[in-house]
Formats: sequence, structure tokens, C-alpha cells
Amino acid sequence: MADADALTELLERDAITRLMVRYADRIDANDPVGAAACFAPDGLGVYWGDFRGREAIAERLTGILAGFHATSHHLSNVQIELTGPTTATAQSYVYAFHRIKGSFEHTHYWGRWVDQLTKVDGEWLFARREVVGVGSFTPGVEAGPDDHPGHPGRL
Amino acid sequence: MADADALTELLERDAITRLMVRYADRIDANDPVGAAACFAPDGLGVYWGDFRGREAIAERLTGILAGFHATSHHLSNVQIELTGPTTATAQSYVYAFHRIKGSFEHTHYWGRWVDQLTKVDGEWLFARREVVGVGSFTPGVEAGPDDHPGHPGRL
Amino acid sequence: MADADALTELLERDAITRLMVRYADRIDANDPVGAAACFAPDGLGVYWGDFRGREAIAERLTGILAGFHATSHHLSNVQIELTGPTTATAQSYVYAFHRIKGSFEHTHYWGRWVDQLTKVDGEWLFARREVVGVGSFTPGVEAGPDDHPGHPGRL
Repeated sequence: MADADALTELLERDAITRLMVRYADRIDANDPVGAAACFAPDGLGVYWGDFRGREAIAERLTGILAGFHATSHHLSNVQIELTGPTTATAQSYVYAFHRIKGSFEHTHYWGRWVDQLTKVDGEWLFARREVVGVGSFTPGVEAGPDDHPGHPGRL
Repeated sequence: MADADALTELLERDAITRLMVRYADRIDANDPVGAAACFAPDGLGVYWGDFRGREAIAERLTGILAGFHATSHHLSNVQIELTGPTTATAQSYVYAFHRIKGSFEHTHYWGRWVDQLTKVDGEWLFARREVVGVGSFTPGVEAGPDDHPGHPGRL
Repeated sequence: MADADALTELLERDAITRLMVRYADRIDANDPVGAAACFAPDGLGVYWGDFRGREAIAERLTGILAGFHATSHHLSNVQIELTGPTTATAQSYVYAFHRIKGSFEHTHYWGRWVDQLTKVDGEWLFARREVVGVGSFTPGVEAGPDDHPGHPGRL
């Protein structure tokens, strides 16, 4: 017989992973309100600045997404730690394709989603979500202010 | 104790995800017959045109794959909805690397696999599989006939 | 009721997938010792040469990682076959982004991780791990010595 606690944990992690997939789906559907609904009502979205609550998050995402004809956020390497019955932390990887509106150029983004999660009325939601770019640097400057190797806690 | 229905659903979704992985594996192994075997006998493959049944699908895939020295189809963002005991729908993301035969150039592809699934004799298979490119456009033309932001239902 | 054997297998495959994610996490954290700890004590890492044991693997990884400002190894398409109570084989896909130290150029890598696994004291570890590049070729030469379409067993 499979271990009951391990199965319960597997279901919780599966539910959280599906929340992450749903968030990317709503971003790529150009649906900022749907993406913001993946946050707890008082959740914090960190998008180069702090945005608290679904309304503020949706407004911020609307501004970001307005610049693109199409986006594709590919989720992988999901790591989840359940820290309590209704709390969890997570890190996952994202590779994102963006086609820029008007110019038909495309850009690429590699990053980490760093999350705090909360279970509200049986549903996992983001309490805090931050995206951290991998390999950022200040063009033309050694050890400039935008330098970031990207991986949280990189040695 | 973990919820029995939730566990049964988890196993079904896992089986479908593994079918998707197997399909990519067979494509990248340049095995069109193995990829076509992931479809139900009367399954429909939509590859810029409709191809019905394993033989027609394998022939179509043979033609597509003949152009490449190597391919790599990276699956992610799997979303599955079980719609009945033997039916399901799914959407997943693909990022694909292709090395073109002869030229040693490579090309990239971003898309969505949009699937209908059927369980036949205990085995999940594709009833219909379509691949939709993300961010397609008609070069040099604003709002041209090939324009497609890519995400199904994009707002 | 969900099938007990199928659930046990699901938990085993989940544990192995998490080992793969942890390995990528430690590589991208520039933590060669942490990555080497994902191997069994007498495990074999094949990195363009054979490296046996955690110390030799960590030393080899240190050398490889020293060339990069940042890396991002995106895991997908995990296929696991349990071959016994404490043994398994696996294949998975990797797409990796690398920012080269000093130059701020980046390079990309597409490959397959081909693994043999062993369960030691209840913990899955790599008994053997090899990375195989997809679409390798000898520049400027048709059918040169570095040619490799990449997919294990490609037809």
C-alpha cells in the first residue's frame, strides 16, 4: 500500500503546479484579470515593483502585456515545499517567448518564479509571486547595477 | 487519508501526460510510425491539413521529419480536463528545436498542442491532435492572412 | 479506489523527477558539490569523459561551471521505467541557457539526460548520468566525427 501521507502531499503539490500552469495560460491568453485571480485577495505580485491585491496586479499585467503581440511562458523545474497545512513555498523555472507588437521582433526571457502560497477555502493561491531574471547584466559595464546571475541563492 | 477520486484522476492525468511525452520521444527519434501509434485507430492528426488514421498520420509525419537532421520537442504546461470515464481534452505547450538537414541551420518553434483524448481498452490515445503555432505572422504585412497570436482563445 | 500498485509507482517516479529537478537547481546555483550529492557514492557522471564518485564529479562540474556567469537548465519530457524495487532507468530532455563569463554572450544547449538510478536507504540517486547533445555536428564537414542527431536510438 502506498503511503497515505505521501499521497496527500502529492495531491497538494499537483494542485499548486496546476495553479502555476493556469497562471501562465492566462498570461499567454492576454487575460490579466484571469492571471490576477491566481493570487489571494491580498496577494503581492512583484513585477519590478510591488503590486498588492488582484486589481493592482491586473492593472500592472495589463501594462506589461500591452507591448506584445504574443507570449509563451514555458514552466518547468517545479520545486514545492509544503510548510504547513495551508502554506507552501515554491521555485520554478520559466523560459518565455515574446513577440513584440508592431515590430514582429521577438525576445526571450529566462527566469525563476519564487512563490509563497496560501490555501484559501481549499484552493491554493499565490500569497506572493516574484519573477527573477536569469543572467541579467548591465550592458557594456562590468559589475554594473543590473547584474544578476539569476538563480536565488547562487553561490 | 488522501481522497480516492482525486487519486484516480491523478493517475488518469499522469497516463495522458506520459502519452504526450511518448509522442514527442517518437517524433524526435524520427519514428513516424511510433508517433502515429499514439493516436486511436481512427484518430485525426491536424498538421496544416487533416490526416485521419495511423497510416495517413505516419505518412504525413514522415514527410515533415524528412527535412530535419534532428528535432527536440520540449513539452510543458500540461492542462488536462477529464470529461468522462474514457474522454478528455488537453492543452500543452511545446518549444521545439529543429536542425535542418544539409544546411546545419537550426530553427525554433513555439506552439500549443490541442488534444482530444479517448481511452481504448484501458489505454489513453489521441482522438484528435492539432498543433497551433504561437506568434505567427505574415512577413512584411500588417494584419496579414497568416497572423495568429497563437494561444487558443487569446483575448 | 485507485490502484495501489499504480500509486506506489507514481510516488517512485515523482521522487526520481524531484531528484532531477534538484540536480538542475544545484547546477544553476553553481553548487557542484550539491549537484554531485545527487549521485550514489560510487555513481558515474559522463561529461565528455567518465567521472566516478562524488568528489570526481564535483571537481569536473566545478571546471565546467567556472566558464559561466549564469546557467538555466530547463527539464522536461521525463520518462522513467522502474526496473526493480531499487533500480530504474530514465530519459529526460534539457534545454539550457548559458551566459558566458566575461563576454556577456549567451549560448544554448539542447540535450538528453540518460540515467540509471538506484535507491539507497530509501533515497533515489543517480547510478549513472550522461548528457547527450541534440543535433551536434562537425562545423563545415558533412558526416564529420562530431555528428550526432542526439536522440538516443534515433532511427
